[in-house]
Formats: sequence, C-alpha cells, structure tokens
Amino acid sequence: MNTFGHIFRIQIFGESHGNFAGITIDGCPPGISIKEKDFKTDLARRKSGAKGTTARKEEDKTLIISGIHNKHTTGAPITILFENKNTRSSDYNFRTHPRPGHADFVADKKYNSFNDDRGGGHFSGRLTLGLVAAGVIAKKIIPSIKIKAKLIEAGGSKNIAKAVENAVKSGDSIGGIIECRVTNAPVGLGEPFFGSVESLISHAIFSIPGIKGIEFGSGFEAAKMRGSEHNDLIINKEGKTKNNNAGGINGGITNGNDIVFRVAVKPTSSISLPQETYNFETEKTEILEIKGRHDACFALRVPVIVEAVTACVLADLFLTHK
Amino acid sequence: MNTFGHIFRIQIFGESHGNFAGITIDGCPPGISIKEKDFKTDLARRKSGAKGTTARKEEDKTLIISGIHNKHTTGAPITILFENKNTRSSDYNFRTHPRPGHADFVADKKYNSFNDDRGGGHFSGRLTLGLVAAGVIAKKIIPSIKIKAKLIEAGGSKNIAKAVENAVKSGDSIGGIIECRVTNAPVGLGEPFFGSVESLISHAIFSIPGIKGIEFGSGFEAAKMRGSEHNDLIINKEGKTKNNNAGGINGGITNGNDIVFRVAVKPTSSISLPQETYNFETEKTEILEIKGRHDACFALRVPVIVEAVTACVLADLFLTHK
Amino acid sequence: MNTFGHIFRIQIFGESHGNFAGITIDGCPPGISIKEKDFKTDLARRKSGAKGTTARKEEDKTLIISGIHNKHTTGAPITILFENKNTRSSDYNFRTHPRPGHADFVADKKYNSFNDDRGGGHFSGRLTLGLVAAGVIAKKIIPSIKIKAKLIEAGGSKNIAKAVENAVKSGDSIGGIIECRVTNAPVGLGEPFFGSVESLISHAIFSIPGIKGIEFGSGFEAAKMRGSEHNDLIINKEGKTKNNNAGGINGGITNGNDIVFRVAVKPTSSISLPQETYNFETEKTEILEIKGRHDACFALRVPVIVEAVTACVLADLFLTHK
Amino acid sequence: MNTFGHIFRIQIFGESHGNFAGITIDGCPPGISIKEKDFKTDLARRKSGAKGTTARKEEDKTLIISGIHNKHTTGAPITILFENKNTRSSDYNFRTHPRPGHADFVADKKYNSFNDDRGGGHFSGRLTLGLVAAGVIAKKIIPSIKIKAKLIEAGGSKNIAKAVENAVKSGDSIGGIIECRVTNAPVGLGEPFFGSVESLISHAIFSIPGIKGIEFGSGFEAAKMRGSEHNDLIINKEGKTKNNNAGGINGGITNGNDIVFRVAVKPTSSISLPQETYNFETEKTEILEIKGRHDACFALRVPVIVEAVTACVLADLFLTHK
Repeated sequence: MNTFGHIFRIQIFGESHGNFAGITIDGCPPGISIKEKDFKTDLARRKSGAKGTTARKEEDKTLIISGIHNKHTTGAPITILFENKNTRSSDYNFRTHPRPGHADFVADKKYNSFNDDRGGGHFSGRLTLGLVAAGVIAKKIIPSIKIKAKLIEAGGSKNIAKAVENAVKSGDSIGGIIECRVTNAPVGLGEPFFGSVESLISHAIFSIPGIKGIEFGSGFEAAKMRGSEHNDLIINKEGKTKNNNAGGINGGITNGNDIVFRVAVKPTSSISLPQETYNFETEKTEILEIKGRHDACFALRVPVIVEAVTACVLADLFLTHK
Repeated sequence: MNTFGHIFRIQIFGESHGNFAGITIDGCPPGISIKEKDFKTDLARRKSGAKGTTARKEEDKTLIISGIHNKHTTGAPITILFENKNTRSSDYNFRTHPRPGHADFVADKKYNSFNDDRGGGHFSGRLTLGLVAAGVIAKKIIPSIKIKAKLIEAGGSKNIAKAVENAVKSGDSIGGIIECRVTNAPVGLGEPFFGSVESLISHAIFSIPGIKGIEFGSGFEAAKMRGSEHNDLIINKEGKTKNNNAGGINGGITNGNDIVFRVAVKPTSSISLPQETYNFETEKTEILEIKGRHDACFALRVPVIVEAVTACVLADLFLTHK
Repeated sequence: MNTFGHIFRIQIFGESHGNFAGITIDGCPPGISIKEKDFKTDLARRKSGAKGTTARKEEDKTLIISGIHNKHTTGAPITILFENKNTRSSDYNFRTHPRPGHADFVADKKYNSFNDDRGGGHFSGRLTLGLVAAGVIAKKIIPSIKIKAKLIEAGGSKNIAKAVENAVKSGDSIGGIIECRVTNAPVGLGEPFFGSVESLISHAIFSIPGIKGIEFGSGFEAAKMRGSEHNDLIINKEGKTKNNNAGGINGGITNGNDIVFRVAVKPTSSISLPQETYNFETEKTEILEIKGRHDACFALRVPVIVEAVTACVLADLFLTHK
Repeated sequence: MNTFGHIFRIQIFGESHGNFAGITIDGCPPGISIKEKDFKTDLARRKSGAKGTTARKEEDKTLIISGIHNKHTTGAPITILFENKNTRSSDYNFRTHPRPGHADFVADKKYNSFNDDRGGGHFSGRLTLGLVAAGVIAKKIIPSIKIKAKLIEAGGSKNIAKAVENAVKSGDSIGGIIECRVTNAPVGLGEPFFGSVESLISHAIFSIPGIKGIEFGSGFEAAKMRGSEHNDLIINKEGKTKNNNAGGINGGITNGNDIVFRVAVKPTSSISLPQETYNFETEKTEILEIKGRHDACFALRVPVIVEAVTACVLADLFLTHK
C-alpha cells in the first residue's frame, strides 16, 4: 500500500537509484494556486547538504506531469516527479550482506529477491520528496491551519548542533525527537474509532522511514498522571482548555486547542564505523564497513516531512467534513 | 469511519446506553471453528467487576446474528451483538456540562447536538466489546502467531495492585503502560510506506479509547541511542537478531523477531472527586461531581483489547500476503 | 465485499434462513429525521405476497439497533435488522443437486462447503431488505432529487399482468426490464474514469440478484446511431438538452438532465416445472422438481431495490461533492 | 476517483494536451517478466492511424519510471508515462461553445473553469493508454486465463469496414458493439453482492469513454426468456453447462464457464459535419464546425481497452482470492 487518504489521496512511487521518485495526488480541489517556487522552501528544509546530512547532492526540481494548468490545480490528478541524478553504483551486495538496521533483509525475503536493491530501492528516504510536495499542496487547502514541527532533541541532548557534530566526528549516527504543533484546527475533525485523529496521524507518521514512536499531548507521561491532574478544564465556550494534556484531541476528535504530538526518530542505520554483520553466503558474522554517504542525523531532515504528512491528514479530514 | 482492514474488515456500531453494541466482520475465510465459548476468556479479561473497574454489570453474552453455521465461519459477514442491560438514566446533562477529558464537548459540536449523549453514546468503551470478539476470530486465523499484552505499570508504579487501590481510595483515576509482544510472526508482513506494520498497528491501537502514545522496539529510547548501539545484528540465516531494538520491524516489514510495542493509557476521565467544569449555559466554571460508576483504572481492561486489534491487523496482513 | 460507498457506506449481512438479515450504514450525516413508518412504503413495494411473488410471508419489521436517537440520525453507524421467521427446512440437498441458475454450485466450491446453504444462505434476495432500508435513508439525504423505477416489460411483453399470470399458470418464471429515471440531479456529480456515474450505478445495480444488463440513455441503441443523431444539443444555459441520448451523463458526470437507465432482470431460477439437473453424487443428469415457494416474476419486486441502490450512490456522491 | 482495484490497484493521470498521460500500478507481485516490447501489440491495437480513426499521430512509447528492474516487476509501484507530442492548439473555445456530446460543459461547471480544457483535458481517450499498459501487466499475472474482445457490429451493421467507410465519407461518426469472452477463468472468483464479477467488470468498463451499456450472458435477451429456457444445465462435475445464458457468472461468482459480455459504444461525439451548438456568451444556438482530427469510429480502438480493464479486474480477483 503506497496510497493514503480518503478524499485527498496520495500515491508514492520510485526508487533511490531509479530514474525518478514521484507522487500522484488525487482528489485535490480545483483552483488552488500552485507555482514551482511554492515547493522550494519545504524541499530545501528536507534537502541534504548541511552538516550531519548525506553528501548526496540532488537538485530536487519538481517536474509537474499533470493536474496543474495555468498555475492552478485543475481537479484532475497531480503527478510530480523528481529526477535522481547523483546515484552511484556500489560494489556492496545488500542481498548477501544485509545492512544492520536496514530493510535489506526483509525486502529480499518479501519480494523473492526481485526488489530493486540499489541504494535500498523503494525503501528509501528519497521517496519522502513526494510527501513533502504533497504537503505543500495540502497546506494550501487549509491555509488558516498552521503546522510547525521542529527537532527538539538529538542524540538525547537539547544541544542539537553539538550532538550532530559529535556523531559526525565519531562516524556514528544519532536520532532525535520532533515536536509538531498544529494551531487553528477547527473543532470536530476526525471520526470515532478508526477515523480518530490519532489513528490517522500516527498511520501517516509511521510511513516516514525511521520513526519508532509517537505520543499525543502528555503522551507516555499521561500514563503516570491522575485523572484529576490530566483532565483539561474547559475555560470558555469555544472549548479552550486551561491545560492541554489531551494534545487537542478528545475521543479522537479535535477540540479546537493546539494539536500537539512528538515523534521519536531512531539513529540512521547507515554509519561509517565498522560494524558486525551477517554474511548469508558463509553464514558467519563478519565486519562490515559501509563506504560513502550517509546522514549522521537523518532526524534533522524529518520535521518538514512530519509537517507534510500531517497536512495531508488534515486536508483530507477538512475536505471530508466540509 | 468505523471500519478497519483490507481483507479482514471490521465495522463497529452501537452506543453505551442503546440496546446493543456490535460488530460485523467481513472477509473472514470459511471453515474456522467458532463456538460461543471461544469468546469467554477474552471477554472476561475485558469485563468490569474487579477492583478498580466500573460497577456496571453486564453479561456480555455474544449474540451471533450471521456468518456462522454449524459452528464454523461460512465466508459470509459475521455480525455479533452484545446487549446493554445495566444502563442507568442520569440527570446529568452532558451538553451543558461536558465532562472534562471526555468527548462530550466535541461530539455535541460535531454532530450538531444530534449525537446520542446517554453515557457517552457511541464514544464509549462499551464498543470495544466488538473489537474483542473480532480479535477472538482473528487469532484463530493466525493460530501459530502468539499475541500477549499485559499492563506493566499503572499510575507510574510497577506495583499495580497498590496503585489501583490508592486510586480507588482517593476517588481519583490512574492510567498505565501496556506492553504487547507478538511471537512467531513470519518475515515479510507489511508493505512499504502507508502499509507499514507500525502504521497499521498504531492506526488500530489509537482507535481504543484513552490511548495517547505508542512506541515500537526501543521507541523513544531509540532517539537517544547511537546507530552503532541501535542497529540489530543478524545472527542466523532466518534473520534472528542479537538485540531487538527494532521491535521486529524494519522498513515497516516484519523481520521474524518478536514484534514488541508499548502503549500509554491515560487516566480515566470519569472520577468521583469533585472537579471544576465549564457550564455552557451560565458560561462560568463550576464544581462538578459525577456520581456513580467508573473505572478507577480502565488500563486494567485494555490489554485484551490491544491484543484484539493487533490480531485483526496481523490476520488482515496474513490474508493479504498469503 | 459486502460493503459499498465512499462517504455513505453500507455493509450488508445475514442469510435467508438464519435469524436475521441486516445492514449497517456508516457515514450518514446527523439530524436526519427517521421514524419506523418511513420504511413502510418502500419495504411494502419489495414485499412478496402479490400474484407472481413467493408465498414466503415475512413481517419485514425494521429493528433499529443503533445510530438513531430521538427519531433522528446521530451521525454514528446505523444498524437495522430484519427477522427471518417464515423459514422452512427443506430435504433438498443443494450441495449434491445444485439448482440450475442458482449460486449453489459456486458457493459450495468457493467456500469449501462451509457456506450456509439453507435457502441459498447469504446468496438470497432476502438480503435486499437492508438495501431498501438504506435507500429510504439515502433518499432523505437528497430530498430534492427524485428517483423513480418501474417495471416496463415482463417476459418480453408490455402487458405485465398477463405475462405474470401465464408464468404462474405454467409453473415457469419470467424476467423483465426496469427503467429508472432520476430527476433534479445537479450538474457535476461523478468523477472522471473510475468514479463515473455509470461506473458507480452499474456497480451497485449488479449487486442486486438476477440483474444481467444495464444501459444508460440510448444505451445499446446508441451503438446503431450516428454522431449527428446521438449528440444532444444544449438549449439553455443550465445545460438542458433537446434530446437525452446521453441519459443525463457526459464523461461520467451528471449534466443536469434526467439520469435514465434500464436494467435487465433474468427470469427467476427457481421454477415449479420439473427440470434437468446434475447429481454430483451419481455424476449423472436427473430430473429435479423443486417444491414450494418461489417468485414467478422476481422482477416485480426489483424496482424499489433499483431505486434504493441508486439513492445510495447519489447520496454518497452528494456527500462527497458538497 | 481515478483509482481502481483492491490488491492490484491502478491510478491514472494526465491530460490530452499536457506533457504526459500515465498510470501507476500498485500491488503487482514481484518477479513478473516485463520488457518494453511486451506492450507493443496491445498499444498498437489501440493506436490511431487506421481508416476510421483520428489522424493524431503519437509514438505511444512506454516510459517506465519505477517498479521494474532487471526486466521484472519488483513488487514496488510501477509508473509508466506516455508522452503527448502531436498536440495542436485550437482556436476553438470549449467553455463558451461546449461540443455536443462531450464533457466540456460538465467539466467546466464541476471544476469552476479551472479544468484543463485543451483537447478535452483529463476527459480524453488518451488516458486509456495507461489502461492498456496496465492490462498488459495484468494479463501476465493470470497467464492461463484468455481474454478476447472484438468489435462485432459497427453503426448497426455486421459489415464493419463498409460502415466505417460510410461514416468517414459522410463526415459523421458511428458506434458499435464489442463482445468480450474470457476462457479458463477458475470457479469462485468474485464476492457476493458488491464484489460480484458483474459489479466489478461493469465498474471498470464504464470508465472507458463512450460506453453506454453492458450485458452479461444473454443479457437483455434474458429478460424475455422463461426460467425453464434460461437456467443453464450443469453437465459435468467441473460445473460445465450445456448453454451459457448466465455468461459464466452465478450469484456474482464465476462458475468456470466462459465469461461473456457485450458493451455498447456510442458514436464518437466529434464529427466533421456542421452541427448545432449552444453559445454560452450569446445564449443562442448556432452552427458549429469542428475542424480537424477525430475518430469516425472510436469503437474500432476499444476492444483492447475492454480486454485491459477486464484483465485488471480478474488479476485483482485472482490476487485477492489466492
């Protein structure tokens, strides 16, 4: 399933070292102004090149294939491609020596060795380009709702720059925690049970490579609180609450307060440090050294992707409910 | 959306104080042995009556309406009802005085005051009866996979009995943390991106009332680890790993190791202690006292529901992939 | 798949000789007035008892299980049951002697003989009760759109009463042609390609047992016409056309003129006349005589079902597009 | 909704005069051999250029963007593009002078004039290129099932060449009837009610531009038959029947006999002959003359598209049921 959404639906496709990664967005209303430059800010936030990110250099230029005419959405499906240019062939065999922490082993088994294994193939952070592009369009559908995600901790430290620098120096990698805050969402988005806002956002968020946890409002801390502490007191007739332990969601439905959630990003699997791996030919453990380019802290690039998938969920709910 | 699943699909319906809560399971294969007694153990685990749970007494007898014939599934949709008997009318007006932490306010707004507000209406833990029943059937579809969830902490304490006792005594409520472990899942369940095992399990889990967080494997702890620590070393050709920081999932796909996740349950919103609330008629805060029955620790009843929805996800993936 | 619809979604369940047939309607907006008597007219039109219909007598009383409170829809799923009372056990073995024209053979094979075979089990016209109930609710969602279906021909004859009488006398059965006309549908319902109005209506219509053809506007006759004849001339700025060869649909989208389609209902498979059948035990053809109750012209009861599923499609499109 | 399918899912996109038309196929199993030349025969059958088809000349070269590696499907989504080269700007204004029989009027209304109106935009037979490509892949998933569609009548005549010649000469257009026969489909494909084979095939078929009717087996003729005539006698234990009035489908499920259906294609809307049209600026009827290229008999190109969407339905059912 490479599709998500009910009215505003996205379909991603592509591979790390194929010719293109891309996305199709179906169900987007007509008449939304879209220019190529609208994508720039968010694509730049996702881009590598900064300290702690991979040396792979890509232009990340949006190629709009369909669905946009006279600089506006037409109501027909929007397909956007991103060319892969800076690909490198590797001598490394991901089938016999699956990289620890990567999807190499499971992809080989699941697809009977027919999966494209170059650079991880379809299991690649490169595919998140399409998510960011969809997010740009989704945000325009709900212009009054503001979605802001930021990295609040990396490698267990609030001093993110320092933590990244250490990771780079040591040839290792670190993860991080991202907090996302949505302001101005109306009361009433979401559906009971399987359409709860938490269900939909978590579903979308766990599609981002490397995410291993999510919590809403007080989250895991709530499990230690008493009801008398945790219950949020409503203080005006718009439903504004004094505290926001619920993270803006009651019974799966937005309550008009800020939607707040945090996600845990694991440390990048690819590291420069030599590490042990299993050789499926010799059936023995050996030392593996992965040459080349990797993100020491992929979490640096994730906030904009978190915003993008959250925007897709909220735009979809907005279009469903209006 | 009160439906979930792709091949094995569940649809829940009902209200807390209506005549019935129920579920329809569509897409269940024919020939699975189902007797009424098969539901007893899991329904009993969900049941109230024990210390720390609500005094509402229900028989929770399964009324099988369709889809089972000669004690086997037929391949047609299975509908199961549960009668609500021990309902009580309340003088309390959930519209003018929405209970803090409950869905009263959002339900009233979302449904223009047409929602059934008796006992929370459709937003009720009572609906999880159907989930447990679906879980019993789902478990039978994947008999070799074992799913075990347990409450590992309540109110911040490992001494669960003591914590519950204190909550009851003080007229307050507590939440807890549940760990779920799935053994014997085959390699290769799940799909890249939006069909990731984490996406599907979290989607289902957040449909359970009161869940505010989920983490897989090392989860939030992973965000503090280095790649060299976190990467799980494969140690045999079946893909068994030395550690299990990934919680049995790489790239969204099961890797054959135990699937492990934890969920955070918030403290029950209903408490006996007087608390402040907002009166929508006077537009002033006042003191509210909710008489009657509530769970001091609803988390005690959640493990079997966690198992049930996890079983539904895994049965669905199993049927999709086979 | 016993489900249909995108926003307004229906799930049917039940068996001919089980305890109940039923339906769940999810996605119905709150605040729609529904009383038990609202179902009466349409259920009566579907009912047997008239000349040419089966002697099975059922009360067809709606048992509302959920989703309706204070005589209005609540926004939660609506489940309605119909009790099966007038069931008769039969000595006839549908597995060894599948009835010609029935689903007996395919159901036995598909479900490895676990299907409920009493009276056809899940493959029963009895299940259309739920469709009619859903149609009653759907019609209320789109009150300004009028949907009228009628039997315009039976057994090849416009004199329907006479044709039915002959069929009854001879112990045989006949089919018929039903025309459905939808007036007042707005311009713009439907989506290009797989969401075309013809795609959705035909999908729903072919779920009704016994339907073997559908044509929109001039339909099969159009295949014999020239473009210069067939093209409908627009005559005012609302898009009203001089003729209506298109049946109210261009490019899959409603054009504001009447939606017109006809469906072909095959003759009922069950007949009193002795007929040849295959005995799967002896592996020989033998003469079969089916005692008992059957519709000599099931097509008499189908118009209201055609209206119902059409109403479900249009209500769904209306809710999706608004 | 530009998507179709449950396991084998297709998403189409593109415009007549945009840069590309294309398709994404998700859910295709890995390991299916696909070479560029595999597409040639079917794409050639759809191609224009023959007598009676449009003069628009396109290479129809498949550009494979993703999902195929080492000449085999990988299990990841397959995206294929087709470049539009032979586009011509037209002075003709489809908004003020919508072409009779076309989607111009409804598209303009539905999309608030934001739709791409060049050459019909998204409402174009050009989009069926992707369907044909998907059909080529679908046919490879079910290699033992044979699907053959042919034009059996054009403009009401069995002498198709003559009818086409007359249409071309007169500057008019004709439609036709296509019969599709599927041999070797196993018993048991399809699901009761909304997953009936007739529901799914008709849904897919009506996504093809210009289709206005479909009938299975004896179809509309069945409505004139008696049950004793129409019921198909089983003659061996594989379920082979003496006649095939049911068109290979009972109760919505394949019975192992040939699936047979016919579809009605209306005459192409674009004709060279001057015709009346409505001018939305002057609000008067006037004479319209559409210069240029059109199919005098688009039905000539439709059989391969009918095969393609049928193959998609059957591949999807096959993958769902296996």
